[in-house]
Amino acid sequence: MKRILVIHGPNLDLLGKREPQVYGKTSLAEINRSLKQTAKKSKISLTIAQSNHEGEIVDLIGGARGKFDMIIINPAAYTHTSIAIRDAIAASAVKTIEVHLSNIHAREEFRQTSLIAPVCIGQISGFGARSYSLALFAAEALLKNRNK
Amino acid sequence: MKRILVIHGPNLDLLGKREPQVYGKTSLAEINRSLKQTAKKSKISLTIAQSNHEGEIVDLIGGARGKFDMIIINPAAYTHTSIAIRDAIAASAVKTIEVHLSNIHAREEFRQTSLIAPVCIGQISGFGARSYSLALFAAEALLKNRNK
Amino acid sequence: MKRILVIHGPNLDLLGKREPQVYGKTSLAEINRSLKQTAKKSKISLTIAQSNHEGEIVDLIGGARGKFDMIIINPAAYTHTSIAIRDAIAASAVKTIEVHLSNIHAREEFRQTSLIAPVCIGQISGFGARSYSLALFAAEALLKNRNK
Amino acid sequence: MKRILVIHGPNLDLLGKREPQVYGKTSLAEINRSLKQTAKKSKISLTIAQSNHEGEIVDLIGGARGKFDMIIINPAAYTHTSIAIRDAIAASAVKTIEVHLSNIHAREEFRQTSLIAPVCIGQISGFGARSYSLALFAAEALLKNRNK
Amino acid sequence: MKRILVIHGPNLDLLGKREPQVYGKTSLAEINRSLKQTAKKSKISLTIAQSNHEGEIVDLIGGARGKFDMIIINPAAYTHTSIAIRDAIAASAVKTIEVHLSNIHAREEFRQTSLIAPVCIGQISGFGARSYSLALFAAEALLKNRNK
Amino acid sequence: MKRILVIHGPNLDLLGKREPQVYGKTSLAEINRSLKQTAKKSKISLTIAQSNHEGEIVDLIGGARGKFDMIIINPAAYTHTSIAIRDAIAASAVKTIEVHLSNIHAREEFRQTSLIAPVCIGQISGFGARSYSLALFAAEALLKNRNK
Amino acid sequence: MKRILVIHGPNLDLLGKREPQVYGKTSLAEINRSLKQTAKKSKISLTIAQSNHEGEIVDLIGGARGKFDMIIINPAAYTHTSIAIRDAIAASAVKTIEVHLSNIHAREEFRQTSLIAPVCIGQISGFGARSYSLALFAAEALLKNRNK
Amino acid sequence: MKRILVIHGPNLDLLGKREPQVYGKTSLAEINRSLKQTAKKSKISLTIAQSNHEGEIVDLIGGARGKFDMIIINPAAYTHTSIAIRDAIAASAVKTIEVHLSNIHAREEFRQTSLIAPVCIGQISGFGARSYSLALFAAEALLKNRNK
Amino acid sequence: MKRILVIHGPNLDLLGKREPQVYGKTSLAEINRSLKQTAKKSKISLTIAQSNHEGEIVDLIGGARGKFDMIIINPAAYTHTSIAIRDAIAASAVKTIEVHLSNIHAREEFRQTSLIAPVCIGQISGFGARSYSLALFAAEALLKNRNK
Amino acid sequence: MKRILVIHGPNLDLLGKREPQVYGKTSLAEINRSLKQTAKKSKISLTIAQSNHEGEIVDLIGGARGKFDMIIINPAAYTHTSIAIRDAIAASAVKTIEVHLSNIHAREEFRQTSLIAPVCIGQISGFGARSYSLALFAAEALLKNRNK
Amino acid sequence: MKRILVIHGPNLDLLGKREPQVYGKTSLAEINRSLKQTAKKSKISLTIAQSNHEGEIVDLIGGARGKFDMIIINPAAYTHTSIAIRDAIAASAVKTIEVHLSNIHAREEFRQTSLIAPVCIGQISGFGARSYSLALFAAEALLKNRNK
Amino acid sequence: MKRILVIHGPNLDLLGKREPQVYGKTSLAEINRSLKQTAKKSKISLTIAQSNHEGEIVDLIGGARGKFDMIIINPAAYTHTSIAIRDAIAASAVKTIEVHLSNIHAREEFRQTSLIAPVCIGQISGFGARSYSLALFAAEALLKNRNK
Repeated sequence: MKRILVIHGPNLDLLGKREPQVYGKTSLAEINRSLKQTAKKSKISLTIAQSNHEGEIVDLIGGARGKFDMIIINPAAYTHTSIAIRDAIAASAVKTIEVHLSNIHAREEFRQTSLIAPVCIGQISGFGARSYSLALFAAEALLKNRNK
Repeated sequence: MKRILVIHGPNLDLLGKREPQVYGKTSLAEINRSLKQTAKKSKISLTIAQSNHEGEIVDLIGGARGKFDMIIINPAAYTHTSIAIRDAIAASAVKTIEVHLSNIHAREEFRQTSLIAPVCIGQISGFGARSYSLALFAAEALLKNRNK
Repeated sequence: MKRILVIHGPNLDLLGKREPQVYGKTSLAEINRSLKQTAKKSKISLTIAQSNHEGEIVDLIGGARGKFDMIIINPAAYTHTSIAIRDAIAASAVKTIEVHLSNIHAREEFRQTSLIAPVCIGQISGFGARSYSLALFAAEALLKNRNK
Repeated sequence: MKRILVIHGPNLDLLGKREPQVYGKTSLAEINRSLKQTAKKSKISLTIAQSNHEGEIVDLIGGARGKFDMIIINPAAYTHTSIAIRDAIAASAVKTIEVHLSNIHAREEFRQTSLIAPVCIGQISGFGARSYSLALFAAEALLKNRNK
Repeated sequence: MKRILVIHGPNLDLLGKREPQVYGKTSLAEINRSLKQTAKKSKISLTIAQSNHEGEIVDLIGGARGKFDMIIINPAAYTHTSIAIRDAIAASAVKTIEVHLSNIHAREEFRQTSLIAPVCIGQISGFGARSYSLALFAAEALLKNRNK
Repeated sequence: MKRILVIHGPNLDLLGKREPQVYGKTSLAEINRSLKQTAKKSKISLTIAQSNHEGEIVDLIGGARGKFDMIIINPAAYTHTSIAIRDAIAASAVKTIEVHLSNIHAREEFRQTSLIAPVCIGQISGFGARSYSLALFAAEALLKNRNK
Repeated sequence: MKRILVIHGPNLDLLGKREPQVYGKTSLAEINRSLKQTAKKSKISLTIAQSNHEGEIVDLIGGARGKFDMIIINPAAYTHTSIAIRDAIAASAVKTIEVHLSNIHAREEFRQTSLIAPVCIGQISGFGARSYSLALFAAEALLKNRNK
Repeated sequence: MKRILVIHGPNLDLLGKREPQVYGKTSLAEINRSLKQTAKKSKISLTIAQSNHEGEIVDLIGGARGKFDMIIINPAAYTHTSIAIRDAIAASAVKTIEVHLSNIHAREEFRQTSLIAPVCIGQISGFGARSYSLALFAAEALLKNRNK
Repeated sequence: MKRILVIHGPNLDLLGKREPQVYGKTSLAEINRSLKQTAKKSKISLTIAQSNHEGEIVDLIGGARGKFDMIIINPAAYTHTSIAIRDAIAASAVKTIEVHLSNIHAREEFRQTSLIAPVCIGQISGFGARSYSLALFAAEALLKNRNK
Repeated sequence: MKRILVIHGPNLDLLGKREPQVYGKTSLAEINRSLKQTAKKSKISLTIAQSNHEGEIVDLIGGARGKFDMIIINPAAYTHTSIAIRDAIAASAVKTIEVHLSNIHAREEFRQTSLIAPVCIGQISGFGARSYSLALFAAEALLKNRNK
Repeated sequence: MKRILVIHGPNLDLLGKREPQVYGKTSLAEINRSLKQTAKKSKISLTIAQSNHEGEIVDLIGGARGKFDMIIINPAAYTHTSIAIRDAIAASAVKTIEVHLSNIHAREEFRQTSLIAPVCIGQISGFGARSYSLALFAAEALLKNRNK
Repeated sequence: MKRILVIHGPNLDLLGKREPQVYGKTSLAEINRSLKQTAKKSKISLTIAQSNHEGEIVDLIGGARGKFDMIIINPAAYTHTSIAIRDAIAASAVKTIEVHLSNIHAREEFRQTSLIAPVCIGQISGFGARSYSLALFAAEALLKNRNK
């Protein structure tokens, strides 16, 4: 059974209430529930965490080494400022998919550059809560391939 | 029945032969066949085109107005240089998803900025041929929602 | 009788339908008809072309040498990206007026620089369909002077 | 009867004598006389002012509110340095057309950016003294429309 | 009774001892005491927190939604590096005033840009401990207005 | 009795009428009246001037040496372009507070840099007409301290 | 017998007539005739194409795979703007030499950067029509080496 | 008898009192007196003006045409911001020498670029009040040469 | 007896396992053991901490005031992003040496600038685990000097 | 008989031993021998010099005036840093060809700009030792033309 | 008797022959002769050196400590590239005047920045050979003052 | 017995006398003596050279190939401007340690980038004369390892 770690970055705990015109009306709990259901069907074990602390996210990723087969991360604001999270992903050597609710490439210029992307497999951005399910879908396919 | 237009940009006709360490070994014909099958199951009508000509891609998008419900485009090299394609998408007012085989955010700096992204719903990048199926999956979900 | 070549750049075929809040509601056919009428009164022979293809526009300008007394061009998106069109104007040595429907200097930063301007006589920007008739008016005056 | 305010910016009092290869040989008095004649025919009341003082130009524009239907301004050197004139135009809320004798987009890099353009309807640049008559022609057309 | 949350950012716990020629000799405890007294007179309930942790500050702001009428924040070093705090303020939708002890616009270039300012009502910078009391004074006035 | 000079920069004479969504509905006369009242209570002698002319503002500041104890200035558009005003403040050696009605740090990029700030005590920005009263409040406190 | 593809980019069809002070007086036909003669002597089969269309040049290069041993390209204006041609050369994997009539490194700044160079063997620039014969000379030498 | 116009820019009226560690202790009156004496010996007619107003300086230079043989100008703060003064010098076509009291190339970065220099014969900077006498010395030599 | 605080920044807990081709194979425990032994011989009391949390590192440095004679810090990823740690070092006023395992000046451009360096005595970078012992060696020498 | 001066810049004395994967295995002596042979056939007198000293290269070029008909120079590392060599070429007025072993336009960004190119006829880069023989070939052709 | 060292930088040995339209027709020998005469009158001992070698100029300046009262230097091309000469001037602590024949502020952008200026008293630029005599004149005056 | 070459760059011959507040009071002779003693104890043969000439330093490094086991270099001013020295180190393939007396990362911006660092093992900067002994200490350790 494959194990995937989902990490929600800063301010995502306010989802649904926070600027709904940008981030949608679905709450984080609803997203998590829906992801858990999908994962269950695919026989994937899902661990989900949210943190506003850069250091905690670094801890989570560092600790994922050997415990998870893949990470799905929405680094939110830290996407553009955290070399520490980038280094953590490179250091942990766990394959990682980057996810964004809004299309960051269509927003303010400082949101268009990701420090995280160069150490990830790929990036999915702009599909609201569906960005996560697309990432789960991608992760599943990638993990199956690796088994062959 | 929903109609989706898939546009492959310049040099994608060489797929499979072209730098396989970057772009994978799957040929464009194989990708198209697989997309057609998936679309068939979902009762989506798929039209697929490839062009190395910026002007032809602008023609295709301009002509999509009223004929297609959604566009999936891999603008390839034109991602970074074509304001004309960007303007075509905005002018046609057909909802568009941007797709890339490689993770463009992990490559040369000039490949990290997309002129196309600001007029698209979202961007999927880095999953090889799977980037297209993820986009189809996303398009389907988005189109269902719109029907309600 | 003076001969003027009018060139409409990419996406201008969609005029009237395309983002009317930016580009107005007049269609390209209506603009062309109105220009033809004005030209007729002034005994100017007008040839009008529209293309989404950078290469075709380069062909048109290169072919204008010795056949036209002046060019009026709205390079649209190619204003900001095409050194080829700039070189074509310089190479053809036909005097050229640059025209824009919207005031490009009041829009996104990447639309505020024109690669075409340095090889043109002048630029008229922001008067909607009237930008063309102002250019025709200017061309007529300039051509009369040259005859003296 | 429509009232238009024409403002000539710094050094334009030297016109005709000043670098004639760049700015032409027509003096400011000649331009003004020709503009007055054209305006008379079109039943437009024309007020003309020239100043080398940024502050005086700001005063003129601020005072134009409610007294003029349109402003035609050649901000000359202040085009590139005066946020105060830009703010004055925005504050006065009188529709404004920007005019340049030379094609500023074909000159030194620091002359290619206009701080004034973003608060104007449009810009006409490069037609020598004719830039003004083109602007008057445009203003007249715009004012007629507004009357309907 | 209005509730205001005061947040002191990193290194402000060292106030009074830290580079007194830049930040003054008043300790944070003294500032807090003085703010509490002023607030008491104005019948404002004041909650005060200090943290060196970006994540904790994000937590505090996220938790302020519905519990506080206004935030007064001195983001200190995080002013220039934290998109997460900026997003937290936007997400919480609690009106916020930015405060700085030193005049950040007169210091090193990297201290002159605030990532926080665009989501705040206003900024007060350079008045030492008085910057806080000016902010409290401003907050009180703003809250009174909202009651009308 | 302390003497303070208040200087209102370009276009502030249009206050109340000018873009009220940005600058508020209070006129300059109302602001001045209110400031005079407050100053009277605090036994401060207030001199108020408004000018659209950079040179006049330089004159005012140069002449303030030895005649005023403090300057409160809203340099408006000159904030971002006038080294002359900056030099005047440094040359006059009268302590100066910088004031802005709107939060300049939340506006266009060219409004986010102040050439004036590095020679001022502090800056208050974003509180509308209240920015002035906060500055007066701050000035009073600073002047009292100096007397000790 | 070795096969070489020579590609002339946009506006080179106007050679001889176009700005002769920059590009010389030799026409493209004369250059081609001279190249054919030299190639004949060296027993090299030469195919020559000219196009103003970026897409056609991409087509030509993509089609060269397996049909040509080397490409000599003068990308002209596309040198500085076409990532598509760069990608085509990398994708086709045919060894390529870049040629320029004028010394691009001595011209406008935007002509000093080549997007094409990083995927070419080498670059020859500034020798007029002789740039092509030098490239042919180099290609011949390189191809001989490969045979050993 | 040769006529020279000396123009002192903004804030130079405060000389001697203004930041003496940067600008020295000599007052403007003393500098002028000393210049007059030197000029008298060399049979040069000297006219001296000081202004804090950019527009007045433009007026002075524009009016110098035909009345003066040379201009010596210390544009002070306007050195770095005034295209209007630059244009005035070019328009007046009176040969001009640029003078600075302090060594502007050793000061803040924004003081190291002169918009005025490209239209002047030469620049003398850093010798305090002596910069003026060196300029007078140079002007005299240049004027003598022109007579031959 | 001198007291030195050694701080290891983010991801250094993974040392030995993390990208060994960049950071070497020695674990953090081994480095710490070796440092403790060296310190013992030199009669230096060594306190060692590792944290992935910027805020914790700021706490540690702020708390070092008066308790430690010197800090040796490897700020890792925070080297390039943390103004808070820089301010903490300046605020604590404890002399600090900056250490890096890899030669940061030979890596990606964003790793070549240190926000921490300007508040440190010196920097040692590129000697793997030996960077720490070199720093200890330097600290010892510096502390001895201070005693004289 | 034509005289050509060949100048090899810094570190080229190590050729063959130095990073052979970048610069090839041929030694400088071998290159020189081969050039001498080719020159002999073409009745060209060749003088060859190598220096690691910028000043010596400046001396060589300055001394070439009137003694040589053409210079072939590989400025190596000085290509990107030496305005002195650029000025020497302009000052000597001897026609010069710039040569590089590796394709500098495909290497690190700082190697892609040549300070020397703007004063040279042309540049040949990327053909290893053959870059020199191509330059000799070009020089010969250019010198023949000049004789006509 | 005061001793002054005059240093002429690279390519100045070619003066008179080198681009006379930029640098004038006077040879270096003539300049030196004229300077010697002037110095003799003023009882100044003049030592003059010219070198194309950055290192030699550094040697000269380093050796000037204690032997010369002032240095007059025309660093020519090294003005814009040599930190070594800048450091030599600062290290030698001999007061230095920077001289340029042409007005460097009116030339190519890379000639407008002087690395040398920040360690000099002042700069004289644009007066041809007279720049040197103006510098000598200034040096004499400065040295007299120091004697008092 | 291991052989190490120590190279002191420009102006280091003035050490002790040169700006002692930046570079300390120890002379170069004292540093060399102390290094020789330390080396003797460690049975290392030390060769020491100082030069103000970039070319001589390039010669020294190029000649070190096969004669020295390691280089310790303080490139001083050439750190920031010499690609030639960088290329020499890469070409010689002798392992090199970069040393600076002052902490270059805490000084002017142009001193914070090292062109030399990317070809060195590591960099030690800011410890005064001790920077050299730390480098010797590091070199010794590195050389021992290589013997195993």
